[in-house]
Amino acid sequence: MPVHASLTVNLDDRSYPIIIGSELLGGGHDLATFIRGPDCLIVSNVRVAPLYLDRLRANLGAKSVGSIELPDGEAHKSIATMQSILDRLAETGAGRDTTIIALGGGVVGDIAGFAAACYMRGIDFVQVPTTLLAQVDSSVGGKTGVNHPRGKNLVGAFHQPKAVLIDTDTLATLPDRELKAGLAEVIKHGAICDIEFFAWLEENMQALLQKEPAALAQAIQRSCEIKAAVVADDEREAGRRAILNFGHTFGHAIERCEGYGEWLHGEAVAAGMIMAARLSGIAEADVQRLRALIEQAGLPTSPPAISADAWMEAMGMDKKVKQGKLRFVLLRELGDAHIDTSYESQRLQQIVGARS
Amino acid sequence: MPVHASLTVNLDDRSYPIIIGSELLGGGHDLATFIRGPDCLIVSNVRVAPLYLDRLRANLGAKSVGSIELPDGEAHKSIATMQSILDRLAETGAGRDTTIIALGGGVVGDIAGFAAACYMRGIDFVQVPTTLLAQVDSSVGGKTGVNHPRGKNLVGAFHQPKAVLIDTDTLATLPDRELKAGLAEVIKHGAICDIEFFAWLEENMQALLQKEPAALAQAIQRSCEIKAAVVADDEREAGRRAILNFGHTFGHAIERCEGYGEWLHGEAVAAGMIMAARLSGIAEADVQRLRALIEQAGLPTSPPAISADAWMEAMGMDKKVKQGKLRFVLLRELGDAHIDTSYESQRLQQIVGARS
Repeated sequence: MPVHASLTVNLDDRSYPIIIGSELLGGGHDLATFIRGPDCLIVSNVRVAPLYLDRLRANLGAKSVGSIELPDGEAHKSIATMQSILDRLAETGAGRDTTIIALGGGVVGDIAGFAAACYMRGIDFVQVPTTLLAQVDSSVGGKTGVNHPRGKNLVGAFHQPKAVLIDTDTLATLPDRELKAGLAEVIKHGAICDIEFFAWLEENMQALLQKEPAALAQAIQRSCEIKAAVVADDEREAGRRAILNFGHTFGHAIERCEGYGEWLHGEAVAAGMIMAARLSGIAEADVQRLRALIEQAGLPTSPPAISADAWMEAMGMDKKVKQGKLRFVLLRELGDAHIDTSYESQRLQQIVGARS
Repeated sequence: MPVHASLTVNLDDRSYPIIIGSELLGGGHDLATFIRGPDCLIVSNVRVAPLYLDRLRANLGAKSVGSIELPDGEAHKSIATMQSILDRLAETGAGRDTTIIALGGGVVGDIAGFAAACYMRGIDFVQVPTTLLAQVDSSVGGKTGVNHPRGKNLVGAFHQPKAVLIDTDTLATLPDRELKAGLAEVIKHGAICDIEFFAWLEENMQALLQKEPAALAQAIQRSCEIKAAVVADDEREAGRRAILNFGHTFGHAIERCEGYGEWLHGEAVAAGMIMAARLSGIAEADVQRLRALIEQAGLPTSPPAISADAWMEAMGMDKKVKQGKLRFVLLRELGDAHIDTSYESQRLQQIVGARS
């Protein structure tokens, strides 16, 4: 049985399934059922396409299938790259019933999803994430977009996919460093709202690092369940959805100061989560427990050397200080996150100053 | 009393007011009430800004107000122009609570609205339309976007404004040709669903052409009422909203074949409406009645010389013929439009061939 689990993201008429399993690309799930019209465009990149494009194509039956290969990497997550997808759609006369299929990691999914959001004011798209990070996080929830020289994901749209198809077999070719980066978001899900899942991860981290299929499928399923529930509750991040950004204020600052791509997103978030846990003022034993799991996952536990001023600027402190404090995702305790501005400013200074 | 009428576009939590009157920009309505945060960016163009920017600014009280002037004209309705707004927002560190105010005609409103839709995945925007076309049509309903070399409005988003403020005084500076172009959409509203309004227009066309304030306010109000009702019923144009495109399949083809800007949008729609009425197969007397009103408004009643092949290609016939016929907005009778594919193909050939 290739399908391990099938979940639903409940968003009224924008609800959609997440299907998790193995051998899905090769026909374990009939992808064509999610393609409304006769035409689709597979958006992938130069690294992933040679590995999985043919397998995906073969699974699309009688559909008319085009494909476009984007350059690889965060540096290409730009309006210009998004425009290359729009150009292709326009040049081939794609209509409103065309479906975009995003085959790749988070960058591909975000760009392709944003193109789908904008072409003719919104066409269907399906996510086929091939990295752990995309499978447990970015492919679910409808956040699409590209970077701006002045900030990550500064330009984008909320546009929910019609389906998310997660074939865990694709992780076989994923470099270890990227697997680990994905585990950061998995750990995050446990840390913000499921201490039992967190404990399961403590028990199963070695199995995950060794890519044991059952463990991976379980970790992906639980992550998607948590993310789907949070998104269903607050699609456009008016409130509670922001807890998914645990560790991200610090993490984005690291990415920004080091140049995107130097630190992988998950690596920056890993170090950022420990900083955010410290800022939360929870028991030191819980901070250490989080630190230990992150270390077990082979992820960085300390940020790079960044001056206190650079931290503050990168976190937008210069601007937002007008209205008071930064909004952080903090922990009441491990497994219970909330959005708060009531941290101790002095503690923040200590945390960003510790390595400056 | 400067406020002539205040309507609501009913869209649940995206509902918003349309306020119509005179002296509104100068303080007749406190615009600041629609600006959630402390900051706003007025997006205008080089033609409108010198006329109304200062007046608008003065009406924004304690808000921190930036402004950007786009180049004028349909040729600049591009992703590049939209990006210049995003760049400004990013460079000034604009946050999620920044509001964009679109001050200008349809091009300004469409670009500014699309920038608002994309910046940080959606910030507030307010429409302050200064052309009749924008006041009776494009500022209401949340369609935003830009052109692509391959097609008009091919890239965009549905993003509803927080308010539409229509100051009829701005029409004083509107060139006659643009006033008439706006009247095409006013006539359209009568033709598709309100024969009484159509009759009122037959009585009052001279007053409108002479810019009599009461007549203009009345025509704008009724147009906005009709558009608001249609949009509330079908926000994302899944069905009935498409009746607002009456005359537009032919009209867009004219714009496309002649080069955008040669024929104003309203002029192309005017000629297109007569063609669509003919295609509908309604009584010849009703076609002539529509033709007479369009002529009275000083609008073109015949399309330019375009070959039958060019018509078909510009209307997308080459592509869509696969799935059968084009979807046209047709009239059951004057004042009652519906979406239909059951026109006579031979009649379409005659209509586009008549001038080839």
